[in-house]
Amino acid sequence: MKVSDLGEFGLINLIHKSTSLYSDPAHTPWQEVLVGIGDDAAAWRMGDHILLATTDTLVQGVHFDLGVITWEELGWKALAVNLSDIAAMGGVPKYALLSLALPGELETADISEFIKGMMRLAREFSLAVIGGNTAAAPNVVITLTIIGCSRGEAILRRSTARAGDQIAVTGYPGLSAAGLEMLGGKTIFDPEASGMLRRAHLRPTPRIEESRILIEQGVRTAIDTSDGLVADLDHICECSNVGARISIDQIPVHPVVKTCFPNHRELALSGGEDYELLFTADQATVARARQALSCPVTVIGDIVEDQRSSSRVTVIDGRGDTISCGRGGWDHFKHGVAKANHP
Amino acid sequence: MKVSDLGEFGLINLIHKSTSLYSDPAHTPWQEVLVGIGDDAAAWRMGDHILLATTDTLVQGVHFDLGVITWEELGWKALAVNLSDIAAMGGVPKYALLSLALPGELETADISEFIKGMMRLAREFSLAVIGGNTAAAPNVVITLTIIGCSRGEAILRRSTARAGDQIAVTGYPGLSAAGLEMLGGKTIFDPEASGMLRRAHLRPTPRIEESRILIEQGVRTAIDTSDGLVADLDHICECSNVGARISIDQIPVHPVVKTCFPNHRELALSGGEDYELLFTADQATVARARQALSCPVTVIGDIVEDQRSSSRVTVIDGRGDTISCGRGGWDHFKHGVAKANHP
Repeated sequence: MKVSDLGEFGLINLIHKSTSLYSDPAHTPWQEVLVGIGDDAAAWRMGDHILLATTDTLVQGVHFDLGVITWEELGWKALAVNLSDIAAMGGVPKYALLSLALPGELETADISEFIKGMMRLAREFSLAVIGGNTAAAPNVVITLTIIGCSRGEAILRRSTARAGDQIAVTGYPGLSAAGLEMLGGKTIFDPEASGMLRRAHLRPTPRIEESRILIEQGVRTAIDTSDGLVADLDHICECSNVGARISIDQIPVHPVVKTCFPNHRELALSGGEDYELLFTADQATVARARQALSCPVTVIGDIVEDQRSSSRVTVIDGRGDTISCGRGGWDHFKHGVAKANHP
Repeated sequence: MKVSDLGEFGLINLIHKSTSLYSDPAHTPWQEVLVGIGDDAAAWRMGDHILLATTDTLVQGVHFDLGVITWEELGWKALAVNLSDIAAMGGVPKYALLSLALPGELETADISEFIKGMMRLAREFSLAVIGGNTAAAPNVVITLTIIGCSRGEAILRRSTARAGDQIAVTGYPGLSAAGLEMLGGKTIFDPEASGMLRRAHLRPTPRIEESRILIEQGVRTAIDTSDGLVADLDHICECSNVGARISIDQIPVHPVVKTCFPNHRELALSGGEDYELLFTADQATVARARQALSCPVTVIGDIVEDQRSSSRVTVIDGRGDTISCGRGGWDHFKHGVAKANHP
């Protein structure tokens, strides 16, 4: 069987199973692990601290197109997607390691721009870049690793959703995917809309501060929306052994996207790389969180008992009818490298 | 200027300077940093612990050739080169994150073999693989990040060599490069020699246990030999502001390499990827360390005052004459991607 037949999430499961096969949970490091493979970041206990670590890779021609993104934006985005994983755990980012694989014929000025973009975001969160690696490669591959720590004893997980929870999301799902469509298309947008869509796709701001508020208000279940709303909700359902029922009419679509993109519903359901927080909690907790957060927060549905019979995530329309909708989200392995520059 | 003009170490300096430019050392995470960019691993304080983190990337066609290395060997080696960086700091590896970028047309069975090789080595050191990332890519790029901790308050650094120190190295420099030459050449070796050379290049064992003994015996300066003996010694000299004088006749060359490779001196001086420990200390400490270690350890020269006038590392022959020898070592950016499968 080929990796493309298995798909990205099948591959992660394969790696998870294979590593488990050779692991000895009786060993000390394993005994301290709170969250292993399969969440936004790993978590383990060290003395009085809970540490978090996550790594994410951006591949030229798969995750970005140097004809569209500037090096400064690339530096920002490479860090942002990693910080978003720390936000999804409710943590504080502390240290970063940067691994850059790139062709020797690149201009050093471009690398300086990349570092500038990365460090501008790093400064916002007092993140220290303390190490890394460089390697020659035929195309650019950027891997960042972030090490952080929890806020006290609480972390946000994918595995703690319970039937009866409300499901809420920050920001506007699909905004980044709309930005990508704009960047690759011929439609002319006014400068304000164009700038907003470009930023949404190329310069996302990780929801670190918002995740602190979620933790404070008692939320314990979250994921960042990197694969697409339905796909990421499906991850929560899978890890928590529950189902989800969301209403298409409740999903917040940005006015610009609603006006300019006929496929705005598809973008909102399946468009990836928003790096918003999708979270679940009981009604009172969600209400408190909405009040405390200054960004848009929208309740889009409810966690239900695991249906088992069909897909874990059900999307219903205004009349209560189920909309046919797969797990959604983007799978690079299934879509292949040739279809570059898609989330 | 192009990255290839700058070279690997110039690029690392550029990244180091650029990140420093945008860093605020007054911020909390920076205050806890003991070792930043420019050593084998980063080190920082967290409560009663000193934590270590390192990342290393292997690129298909640059660092390995899938026509030569098996997937199982690749898994082992990808982890070994990272664990070697923890050994070079005198630390204990604890947790690993694996980032795999690969083409969708690969067989899943190959990935399972890769994980098997990696986990066999992980088990030897009770290392827990707790997270990672997968991405589609036109060629295989493997990035591992290891998080470990120090043994008490002591760590090994590149920056603590002092004039008068003896310079010693474990094992046989050039053995891995000889293995690479054998794998790419047409010479027939007897099975025992062939197996030994193959293992040296494809299945190195990180010197974690040996680094524990170095720490115990009072050694505080070390690097792992990944770039080549002279190049790695040059890193120590640069970080410590000293010079080094080594004797070509004292460098231990493995008998098989001496017999079968006419260029054995060049291999020993410049061949990379041995993942041995190169360390310096006063004579009494080196003597204690040699006694305590069960692997071959050889004194190859002395640390001297910084010469400044010429190259930092001087290699002398049996008559005391200086052998012309650049900084040596392999620079992937200068040699380019086309020359694949060299260390």
